[in-house]
Amino acid sequence: MKAIVIHAARDLRVEEYAPDPLGPGQLRLRLATGGVCGSDLHYYHNGGFGAVRLREPMVLGHEVSAYVIELGPGVDRFTCGQLVAVSPSRPCATCRYCHEGLPNHCLNMRFYGSAMPFPHIQGAFREELIANAAQCVDATGLSAGEAAMAEPLAVTLHATGRAGSMTGKRALVTGCGPIGVLSILCARRAGAAEIVATDLSDFTLGMARACGADHVINMADTPDALDRFTADKGYFDVLYECTGVAQALGQGINALRPRGVVLQLGLGGDMTLPMMAITAKELDLRGSFRFHPEFATGVELMQKGLIDVKPLITQTVPLNDAERAFRLASDRSQAMKAQIMFSGV
Amino acid sequence: MKAIVIHAARDLRVEEYAPDPLGPGQLRLRLATGGVCGSDLHYYHNGGFGAVRLREPMVLGHEVSAYVIELGPGVDRFTCGQLVAVSPSRPCATCRYCHEGLPNHCLNMRFYGSAMPFPHIQGAFREELIANAAQCVDATGLSAGEAAMAEPLAVTLHATGRAGSMTGKRALVTGCGPIGVLSILCARRAGAAEIVATDLSDFTLGMARACGADHVINMADTPDALDRFTADKGYFDVLYECTGVAQALGQGINALRPRGVVLQLGLGGDMTLPMMAITAKELDLRGSFRFHPEFATGVELMQKGLIDVKPLITQTVPLNDAERAFRLASDRSQAMKAQIMFSGV
Amino acid sequence: MKAIVIHAARDLRVEEYAPDPLGPGQLRLRLATGGVCGSDLHYYHNGGFGAVRLREPMVLGHEVSAYVIELGPGVDRFTCGQLVAVSPSRPCATCRYCHEGLPNHCLNMRFYGSAMPFPHIQGAFREELIANAAQCVDATGLSAGEAAMAEPLAVTLHATGRAGSMTGKRALVTGCGPIGVLSILCARRAGAAEIVATDLSDFTLGMARACGADHVINMADTPDALDRFTADKGYFDVLYECTGVAQALGQGINALRPRGVVLQLGLGGDMTLPMMAITAKELDLRGSFRFHPEFATGVELMQKGLIDVKPLITQTVPLNDAERAFRLASDRSQAMKAQIMFSGV
Amino acid sequence: MKAIVIHAARDLRVEEYAPDPLGPGQLRLRLATGGVCGSDLHYYHNGGFGAVRLREPMVLGHEVSAYVIELGPGVDRFTCGQLVAVSPSRPCATCRYCHEGLPNHCLNMRFYGSAMPFPHIQGAFREELIANAAQCVDATGLSAGEAAMAEPLAVTLHATGRAGSMTGKRALVTGCGPIGVLSILCARRAGAAEIVATDLSDFTLGMARACGADHVINMADTPDALDRFTADKGYFDVLYECTGVAQALGQGINALRPRGVVLQLGLGGDMTLPMMAITAKELDLRGSFRFHPEFATGVELMQKGLIDVKPLITQTVPLNDAERAFRLASDRSQAMKAQIMFSGV
Repeated sequence: MKAIVIHAARDLRVEEYAPDPLGPGQLRLRLATGGVCGSDLHYYHNGGFGAVRLREPMVLGHEVSAYVIELGPGVDRFTCGQLVAVSPSRPCATCRYCHEGLPNHCLNMRFYGSAMPFPHIQGAFREELIANAAQCVDATGLSAGEAAMAEPLAVTLHATGRAGSMTGKRALVTGCGPIGVLSILCARRAGAAEIVATDLSDFTLGMARACGADHVINMADTPDALDRFTADKGYFDVLYECTGVAQALGQGINALRPRGVVLQLGLGGDMTLPMMAITAKELDLRGSFRFHPEFATGVELMQKGLIDVKPLITQTVPLNDAERAFRLASDRSQAMKAQIMFSGV
Repeated sequence: MKAIVIHAARDLRVEEYAPDPLGPGQLRLRLATGGVCGSDLHYYHNGGFGAVRLREPMVLGHEVSAYVIELGPGVDRFTCGQLVAVSPSRPCATCRYCHEGLPNHCLNMRFYGSAMPFPHIQGAFREELIANAAQCVDATGLSAGEAAMAEPLAVTLHATGRAGSMTGKRALVTGCGPIGVLSILCARRAGAAEIVATDLSDFTLGMARACGADHVINMADTPDALDRFTADKGYFDVLYECTGVAQALGQGINALRPRGVVLQLGLGGDMTLPMMAITAKELDLRGSFRFHPEFATGVELMQKGLIDVKPLITQTVPLNDAERAFRLASDRSQAMKAQIMFSGV
Repeated sequence: MKAIVIHAARDLRVEEYAPDPLGPGQLRLRLATGGVCGSDLHYYHNGGFGAVRLREPMVLGHEVSAYVIELGPGVDRFTCGQLVAVSPSRPCATCRYCHEGLPNHCLNMRFYGSAMPFPHIQGAFREELIANAAQCVDATGLSAGEAAMAEPLAVTLHATGRAGSMTGKRALVTGCGPIGVLSILCARRAGAAEIVATDLSDFTLGMARACGADHVINMADTPDALDRFTADKGYFDVLYECTGVAQALGQGINALRPRGVVLQLGLGGDMTLPMMAITAKELDLRGSFRFHPEFATGVELMQKGLIDVKPLITQTVPLNDAERAFRLASDRSQAMKAQIMFSGV
Repeated sequence: MKAIVIHAARDLRVEEYAPDPLGPGQLRLRLATGGVCGSDLHYYHNGGFGAVRLREPMVLGHEVSAYVIELGPGVDRFTCGQLVAVSPSRPCATCRYCHEGLPNHCLNMRFYGSAMPFPHIQGAFREELIANAAQCVDATGLSAGEAAMAEPLAVTLHATGRAGSMTGKRALVTGCGPIGVLSILCARRAGAAEIVATDLSDFTLGMARACGADHVINMADTPDALDRFTADKGYFDVLYECTGVAQALGQGINALRPRGVVLQLGLGGDMTLPMMAITAKELDLRGSFRFHPEFATGVELMQKGLIDVKPLITQTVPLNDAERAFRLASDRSQAMKAQIMFSGV
């Protein structure tokens, strides 16, 4: 079978890969669809990010849906042919954080497609995948593409939960890539009364608008546009910071009212922060990292029509043209989420 | 001008009432629509509830919308002809609770149509009403009937906020009168993944279903239907208790999982509670009382189409037939919210 | 070896009991001291409480300290002769609640000396006890009696944590048995600015005063004494309800200010509650049940001199006179915590 | 009468100053003691900090105690001769934040001795001071020096409240100036199980130890000493960051466990932060700014002996030698809190 393997920056290969054996409590899956994520792009363009560097070839991918083709011993909750969303989150279930209800901080996490540990954790972009039944969520009623959106949706649901009650709140979303736009969908679903979104691309801002933002601002055109929200110490209750850029964070902070919450989702390196504003307005800068129960929640919300991610899927390319998906995903003027089709129904 | 005045139980009169003078910071309003609320019905049927008793004639009503007809000195935020939702919440702005951000606990609250203090606080069911500008929220884009729903909607928005983050939660709503059904709308808006509603009337349960409940249960037909949710210490994260009946609360508590939250909205008298279950499951029974900022929030959410209360308005009767609205509102087999039309556009 | 076994109400025997085998990860312990708890007294006087009934002989006891006498395979964190506090909390570590950070709600909890499940979970009042290393906390520096107080102290630390930040708060403690007085110690340690305690016994109130209550009230002498705290909707931020008696809870609720928190610790049966006050003041009635990490925390706080439980230990009787400890513990006019000495250093 | 007036950096004068008239609801006070604070030192050494610059002469001082010498009309809660702690916090009571329970974010705050607005808000270092009764807290039982510590104590009580429940938590305090040491006192009072403190001065660390830190670290001697707390993703639950130095914050962040809380108290300018660690460990960086109700709370806790600030008062100099207090306060090798005695009993 074939897998999408990154060997070094710009060296992406669709190549033969040995299948894994099927064990107890596991499912053998035929991959349906895989979405290209920002961290995949970091490996593709730069061979890693920050201190995380490729040190051996690694299968990419952690946003996938699949069809069940074989049940391992002891599995009875699934049937062959069923579409499932596959969570890349595989905590150990035995460390202290797993017992504290914080599996996303598992000391032995084996998250698909990560070069943080060595040997690297191989990813999910393979035609055939063995997964634990606990990773798989029934996705009946969704398209394969939607099911593959469960992962980034879970990221933004988790972040939204970190903000506490959202009902009636005013939210600012800086950065309208997939995480930014999914944040808009989540904030709206969670009851935000007003959502303003910023970006530098009219294409992504158009999508932000279509996905529920009340107002969008192209910061390239009107770099001072957030100034109007700074009167009386600020306007917004919540900032979803999805750029990882210090300037965006700084402008967002100026537009937050006292006791406002910054949800830090953009994974950048070190950033210089206006600590005086954070202190004097008593802001709350909260990191948000991955997810766990929110994966199944996201599938359920999509199945019930309460969150609609379909508009975000801008391109779907076949496996043998996979690298094109990576190039498309890098182009904010035409792509939101580019997906790779591994197989059809 | 005319007002709807309750003189004693079953003695409701549409009678002449002297208009108030217009002062600085105030608006003269022509009433548009008024909704009949459960507490209005208590005065109508029983002359009060609990220790609260009518001791003098009192204008009823606290769910109203109106048209601006004159601006008092110093008011410039409004224009004549504009539709506004009028909040019945008039805290003093100077007591300790008003300064703690808890105006709903104001020590000098003058909430429309309440016989708690003496002299009673006269209500808003009058053809012409003087209101403070701070009570009035622009309702442009809404029908007069929707605008008059802002008050009960605010009650359930406030309760929902008391539950903390609702995203992905499982909610049980016991009692599907207007407050129950509005709770369903709010829980859904706030991101609840699953909502189950109970009542004794198929009519109200049908409305609960139409307003977003995933599943409805007629407890008259299947009194043990909640038992299936008691396995593994319970299922629901949140209970909106809208009946004020001890049995419903008890059954709901059995269906709550450990650390679940009971939002107590039903205003009954003393109730006998299963304290062992509350303690052993570490439940959180939270009273929720009125609202304040949620009034404007509700109007905004309706204006943006994020909450749709129109289906709840089941009857609209003219002022001269007002008592019929009270009789209708008392009949759960055909009415959800009965409103009185004081004047048209 | 001998154990303290309850056969039926009033049928308490110190009798021979077979020792358990030592397994991997376990410690063989020589019991030092055991404290008599309210639930032990329920079994002793009534053969159970509520629906929980003795159906077979059961070793009592869950407040114990012990000396290590043998290490099982794989244990290296302990040395022979060392004094340990032994937690009765033995969650399964694999159920959903154990993974959510809520081990006190474990679906398979094996808490010492409980007749809730059948076969009953045998208790810890035995001369020799096999315990998991994970249950044992080094108690060096404490007396055996203090170490045996770690369990009830953990109960009140857990409850205090349920109240959120306590710094500067005003607390009312109704009921000054061991749990009430330990609540006073915890509230004080957690920064409460004012603590008022009530009971019907001058003996226990004297101890409440000695343990840090600013003011104590004998409700038998001055049944209306809490009335002075009801002005302006109430005075206290937090109520530790340690009686399980509806009247005490009702009076406490009247003295709580809006948004006050009731920590329900007294394990009674059903209780009739003033729901109107709970709703109108938006109180938060929170159950608190057992503990888990707080057991080790309590030992550490005692070791550092930050909480001093020594004044609570009013009697210590030898094992062969064990029933006397049960009779003493039942007499609020002379006993706070009666302990049984199983062995000396 | 005389006041301590800063004219420019290093130009501090004890000079004649006109007394204010006494109005209704006010007290005429004879100043007892004033403490020199870090922000006073910024004006003294640099003429301001960040964008805040002296633009006219300004009376310094906001940590003061005083004796009542005359009551204005309508004041009856005080008596002449009484010692009071005087809060420098004077919110307007009418802006939106004052009504949301956030008076420390008042849009019209008149905090003593601040060059932020222009004209500057004159400070409290004057022999005679007119204060609103609402600013004054009875300090009977305290020394004048202790009463003048109520202000910085309120700052750290407020910060501690921002951390939520502290019981059983592990706290790291970086920077052991007065705010750091008061943080130690507050964390201990609030129930912290373990407190580790760092600084570069053995003198201040000695005081940190005396005030309750379990362990102190001189980072000049052992710059890597916090490394031992980084295993398993970190150790501490709470970081009181009292240096305003990016390196200290960065090291503290590395030693925090997932979901740990950073209380940012040090008022520096922009700082470069390790955003990857904040995101990946889901830390919570919370600004803490001034205080309001905590001022009275601090006085009460001191009066009850629950917090003892006396060890922090290292020097007391007479008014005519005031500049010496500023020089002493700048020397971390011998001073913690230097105070100026304006008058005796």
